[in-house]
Amino acid sequence: METANRRNRYCVIMCGGIGSRFWPMSRTDMPKQFLDMFGTGRSLLQQTYDRIRPLCDPENILLTTNVHYVDIIREQLPEIPAENILAEPARRNTAPCICRAAYHIYARNPEASIINIPSDHLVLKENAFIEVLSQGMDFVEKGDRLLTIGLKPVSPHTGYGYIQLGATLDDPSGIRKVKSFTEKPDIEMARTFLANGEFYWNSGMFLWRADSIIKAFEQYAPEINTLFSKARDLIGTPGEAEYINTIYPSAPNISVDYAVMEKARNVYVKTADIGWSDLENWKVLYEISPKTMDGNVTQNCRVLASNSHGNIFAASGDKIMVVSGLDGFIVADTDQALMICPVNDERRIRQVLNEVKEHFGEKFI
Amino acid sequence: METANRRNRYCVIMCGGIGSRFWPMSRTDMPKQFLDMFGTGRSLLQQTYDRIRPLCDPENILLTTNVHYVDIIREQLPEIPAENILAEPARRNTAPCICRAAYHIYARNPEASIINIPSDHLVLKENAFIEVLSQGMDFVEKGDRLLTIGLKPVSPHTGYGYIQLGATLDDPSGIRKVKSFTEKPDIEMARTFLANGEFYWNSGMFLWRADSIIKAFEQYAPEINTLFSKARDLIGTPGEAEYINTIYPSAPNISVDYAVMEKARNVYVKTADIGWSDLENWKVLYEISPKTMDGNVTQNCRVLASNSHGNIFAASGDKIMVVSGLDGFIVADTDQALMICPVNDERRIRQVLNEVKEHFGEKFI
Repeated sequence: METANRRNRYCVIMCGGIGSRFWPMSRTDMPKQFLDMFGTGRSLLQQTYDRIRPLCDPENILLTTNVHYVDIIREQLPEIPAENILAEPARRNTAPCICRAAYHIYARNPEASIINIPSDHLVLKENAFIEVLSQGMDFVEKGDRLLTIGLKPVSPHTGYGYIQLGATLDDPSGIRKVKSFTEKPDIEMARTFLANGEFYWNSGMFLWRADSIIKAFEQYAPEINTLFSKARDLIGTPGEAEYINTIYPSAPNISVDYAVMEKARNVYVKTADIGWSDLENWKVLYEISPKTMDGNVTQNCRVLASNSHGNIFAASGDKIMVVSGLDGFIVADTDQALMICPVNDERRIRQVLNEVKEHFGEKFI
Repeated sequence: METANRRNRYCVIMCGGIGSRFWPMSRTDMPKQFLDMFGTGRSLLQQTYDRIRPLCDPENILLTTNVHYVDIIREQLPEIPAENILAEPARRNTAPCICRAAYHIYARNPEASIINIPSDHLVLKENAFIEVLSQGMDFVEKGDRLLTIGLKPVSPHTGYGYIQLGATLDDPSGIRKVKSFTEKPDIEMARTFLANGEFYWNSGMFLWRADSIIKAFEQYAPEINTLFSKARDLIGTPGEAEYINTIYPSAPNISVDYAVMEKARNVYVKTADIGWSDLENWKVLYEISPKTMDGNVTQNCRVLASNSHGNIFAASGDKIMVVSGLDGFIVADTDQALMICPVNDERRIRQVLNEVKEHFGEKFI
């Protein structure tokens, strides 16, 4: 049974994002997930692969990504068979990507169950992560169930989706029904959620059997379903990529949460304490990172700081930084660009990127 | 007469300095004088050469420098004959360098007169510069005279030498006797000098006949003179470099001002208004450079600055900088090192260099 299960277990690592809020480290041609953000020698994608590896063998690990990143992925994950990289010719959020991956995997193995995970998050408690996902897979493999992973909120974050916990099940795994989903609440509501205790952050990790999610798409997102169900007979043939390239741009730009999860009735949540961060932006990276006595954070560079506090210094390679009298700044340096911006002003980065594009051209972003 | 004069006129460009106060742009292996500080396409040395060129032909322009910089000079000034680069195996301030150059030039041409100039200064009024030096050369060629160029002080600078103007001469050139030299006064004295009006900055430019300065060394600095007078017979032979390499390290580390000028009786000064700056450090560069409406200075880079004032941004190549909320900083970026330091704290740079050396090694400075 163990072995049969393992053979049927697949993982889809979603790595098509552009991580623009980590500019200039993260650029359109080399986004965050492909960077060694912590100087460990492994990119966030490679760390995600390493983390999931105990649950799935390489031939059962698939990657969905923009066509531009296929070569980077091949280089970073040479263990993955080339046919496991599902390239997308356009960015269309998670619903089309997840639907396409489900059909692809179902065609390979109708018994398949799938873990869908982002490629650019941080998980510090790897054993807990494995245990949560193992229990989750055991749960979804038993029936027609869509499972999300919920994380206990530590702040009234307005950028995440929230999952309200529903009825408990008669099940030792602690998995519960989902009562409601709420996308990106305003700050008042986020504070209420945090105080209430019933609301958990949506981690963006989803578990299900391939047939379960296909059924859900048929029911709740027929437009998307129709596009990809037509590919059934082409999967594994040269026609698959050609078909995807033709129809993918016409898919709606929509998240799986909105397209399916908020509508489906068979949605469950497993709460988890896995030392998680979505590494959303510089400020988050600052907050989760170890600090010097002066409250400075150093990423991939050697810094000589005097009379400087609360900064994050990021560079690459052998670069050194000498800093004096600077408080509360992001200093992020690449070969192409240097950004110096107050940590608390990091929301400006999107605007900055537009300005950079306008003044200096696309090649810098 | 004109032609005879020109044939006898030599220029010695001193370019052995290490410009440490412009770190990280200026490094021991590529000091300030070899950098294109203003993005004009010509280094400070090349600009100095261009500036002096109307007065001397390339075969009469010599360079004194540390042996490490010979290749850089050959590359930057291919017009200069290789034998005109007088390499020094050690740093020994200006007195040994000037004495050695005088003997070298005298051996080539006993009628020679010499303009000694630093390689790393800025001169904005090039026509005035030429006129001042022409008049000065006419003056020293007439007799046994040592001429300095004095610059009207614009601040009570404590880092310069001051020349007190003495008796006027019966001469339309406005050249005067020197009453006294004062090296690096304290701030009180510098203020008094500035208010007095009789005190001028010592520019580090000196004019004399080769025989006059040799005579002065014989009289006032016999220790130095003895070292280099022994080379007379070797000049122009392969033995010259070998001899210099052997004895140069034993020469006293002393300036020509202190060794000769302060003691000699035949010292004169020509005051000049030539738009001069010694480009001493980042703060000076900030002060003399054109500024944006927000008071920012940009050197060799493209900057997108918002809510930022009074900064100097320096980089190289195609690098862009995006800066927000920064006031009064030097941001100087090279491939190896990034320095961020308050403009008013630039005096720390020497200390910083020691710390960099200690923490990261000599290769960064």
